[in-house]
Amino acid sequence: MADRQLHLNVNLLNAGFYGSAWRASEGRPDAFLDIAHYVRSAQIAERGTFDAVFLADVPALSDRPEYRPFHALEPTILLTAVAAATERIGLIATASTTYNEPYNIARRFASLDLVSGGRAGWNVVTTADAAASRNFGFDNVTAHATRYERAAEFTEVVTGLWDSWQDDALVGDKETGAFLDLSRVHPIHHAGRHFTVKGPLNVPRSPQGYPVVVQAGGSEDGRELAARHAEAIFSVALTIEDGQAFAADIRRRAARYGRRGSDIVTLPGLATVIGSTEEEARRREERLWSLIPGDYSLVRVAGIFKLDPASLDLDRPLPDEIAVPVDGSQTFFRAMVDTARRDGLTVRELLRKLGGGTGHRVLVGSPEQVADDIERWFRAGAADGFNLMPDVLPDGLETFVDHVVPILRRRGIFRSEYAGRTLRDHFGLRRPENRNVAATSVAV
Amino acid sequence: MADRQLHLNVNLLNAGFYGSAWRASEGRPDAFLDIAHYVRSAQIAERGTFDAVFLADVPALSDRPEYRPFHALEPTILLTAVAAATERIGLIATASTTYNEPYNIARRFASLDLVSGGRAGWNVVTTADAAASRNFGFDNVTAHATRYERAAEFTEVVTGLWDSWQDDALVGDKETGAFLDLSRVHPIHHAGRHFTVKGPLNVPRSPQGYPVVVQAGGSEDGRELAARHAEAIFSVALTIEDGQAFAADIRRRAARYGRRGSDIVTLPGLATVIGSTEEEARRREERLWSLIPGDYSLVRVAGIFKLDPASLDLDRPLPDEIAVPVDGSQTFFRAMVDTARRDGLTVRELLRKLGGGTGHRVLVGSPEQVADDIERWFRAGAADGFNLMPDVLPDGLETFVDHVVPILRRRGIFRSEYAGRTLRDHFGLRRPENRNVAATSVAV
Repeated sequence: MADRQLHLNVNLLNAGFYGSAWRASEGRPDAFLDIAHYVRSAQIAERGTFDAVFLADVPALSDRPEYRPFHALEPTILLTAVAAATERIGLIATASTTYNEPYNIARRFASLDLVSGGRAGWNVVTTADAAASRNFGFDNVTAHATRYERAAEFTEVVTGLWDSWQDDALVGDKETGAFLDLSRVHPIHHAGRHFTVKGPLNVPRSPQGYPVVVQAGGSEDGRELAARHAEAIFSVALTIEDGQAFAADIRRRAARYGRRGSDIVTLPGLATVIGSTEEEARRREERLWSLIPGDYSLVRVAGIFKLDPASLDLDRPLPDEIAVPVDGSQTFFRAMVDTARRDGLTVRELLRKLGGGTGHRVLVGSPEQVADDIERWFRAGAADGFNLMPDVLPDGLETFVDHVVPILRRRGIFRSEYAGRTLRDHFGLRRPENRNVAATSVAV
Repeated sequence: MADRQLHLNVNLLNAGFYGSAWRASEGRPDAFLDIAHYVRSAQIAERGTFDAVFLADVPALSDRPEYRPFHALEPTILLTAVAAATERIGLIATASTTYNEPYNIARRFASLDLVSGGRAGWNVVTTADAAASRNFGFDNVTAHATRYERAAEFTEVVTGLWDSWQDDALVGDKETGAFLDLSRVHPIHHAGRHFTVKGPLNVPRSPQGYPVVVQAGGSEDGRELAARHAEAIFSVALTIEDGQAFAADIRRRAARYGRRGSDIVTLPGLATVIGSTEEEARRREERLWSLIPGDYSLVRVAGIFKLDPASLDLDRPLPDEIAVPVDGSQTFFRAMVDTARRDGLTVRELLRKLGGGTGHRVLVGSPEQVADDIERWFRAGAADGFNLMPDVLPDGLETFVDHVVPILRRRGIFRSEYAGRTLRDHFGLRRPENRNVAATSVAV
């Protein structure tokens, strides 16, 4: 494959990207609790030769559940069930480094990776959610810098554990009775500031070596973590210039860790509202916007800004002075403030432009318009692909697969069939060399 | 169902109960890493209308991996894959209360319970394994009493979280936009010695209410935990008298917590070596014993006794003085010492009697003999059923299902088809009333 190819994930956000997706959908309101809902979407995405399905997560009942579906089923469980009903598509689950132990995460993702034949990815997040912190013995969210320091050490421990086994460690000689060659299985003896973990892991490497490390935070600390460890980044970019600047910044930082730009796939989030014509797409967006209940969007955005919702006037611009939330999501904060200032938007206009309240870009248009936009970003180096968030699941995804994917294929920028079997194959990432084998070679 | 019925789980111990199972099996040595191996066994057990498959676990590379397969794939991941390939059989996974957070365990098992349509069970263990402790920041195993104190609080938090949602909490009214009725979702506000957890859980109750709580330790602390929280017990009993005494003891303790004997199903472990005749079974046992490599059994038993293997003479009885291991497994210790003393066994005879090194009972015989033994224990009130450990998987299980199960069915003590769909249905356990609804009723 000589030409650079586009990468597409679908973010299975319960009923869909819009807070009103469950109301606009023909599905049952409790579909987000039904594994069949996710399996169906994953199968559609696989028909569209997507790289992966992606699951965001928060270990708490959060995101205004009185108004909309939320993160419920635990992502590695959910994706194991999806693995059983699919063949090729990658499976990326989010897990928090703040509220887990590295040995457990290393093992769970290694298990998903083996069970799926090498299709797993781990999205490393530090979880800036107050409700989550209160489920794990904390009164408040841990400070941003501490969370990221822990995340970096956590990720080092996890990838070290994933490399515990040399690929030839399992002997299994029925004649002699020799089973595992312990000289080819390596404890990590990690003793750091946050963790002390001896290892080795009790799960071997998979067909792809180990799960793809994904990262999704755009703060200074988040970018540094990504540059050091991430192989795919779920980023936030609202303009082509944002996307280009982010990619350049990551390349620069990665070089400091001896990594190449091609070692990292950058996928900005992209919500889509697609109609057969632009007018039909606009009507669809109008309906989704009108069905978002009451103060859902306002309170959500106020939460990102850490402001009292009552202090925001829907028909006026954002207040001049808004402090960066020290322990919240800096990425969404910056994306929203930048957009409002640049385009001179009122709070209401900002909310609507962002599909009702997250910081990601929303694209409304015909299949041709959506394909044009994607190609433009891709060719401009503003994205290696996208983490797509269809407005409503599964039908917004089905429309994308049936009407946008064929255009991208005709233009020669997206695969028509899977070339490989693992998530690393799809992303064009190398199977990681085992650090213990490398160490042995050097010693010899 | 008027008559008391037998319950059968199968413990999917990798290649099988014997340390030599992988050598005796026709399967590949790495079958224990292949999800198809477990799916196949689970489907055989489901054909035999077993109550559940059971997975033991240790979060470490332990149990002499140089000689035999070990716990590798994480049990909730493994059983989610099994759930996708089965319809009715229950799914019991082990998870440690010492090396997890209760919110994560509550959520993961609730997710497995929903994904499987109400078939999940959680086997609560405190993990007396030194290698595991070193993967989680400890130099040594936490003291027995502290582990059990934490386990009791952990289990309270988990079951409280499982009851967060009233069954009518999800409104999902597309007209009004009301989604979740937060007045019917209850934080637990737990603040205890080991945990502070606000809740609520972000997963609702399942068709069976919540996962069955299973417990597997026979020490004083373990029995107390079982009496208070367990709905099924995986026990160790080597004689009918042991089984009867254990059942009576649990009933007595349970009564102190206001629970009835029928609220708890007691299932001793039972390893089976079956041949078409007794002689064929003995030959099979002889072969399995002869294939156990080198010092595997000796070192394993010495580990349970916390003795230097070199201090044990294979051809002499156990030493007169052996101290109870304060922080190890008291259950296996006692079972082994009692057996050796009672039957006047040498160390070698003890090892062989116990199938090469665990403390469970091993039954060698024809299908008729195995059925007779099971019926005798069942009718004597020494067991409500068994947690079966076939010598070799899947073929030892297949033999049981094809040749022993039909006898038990003919005798009217074991089901010919599933009467219900959930694990609670199979075990004859009630769907737990929601404590928040009960509280509301009382308040009204």
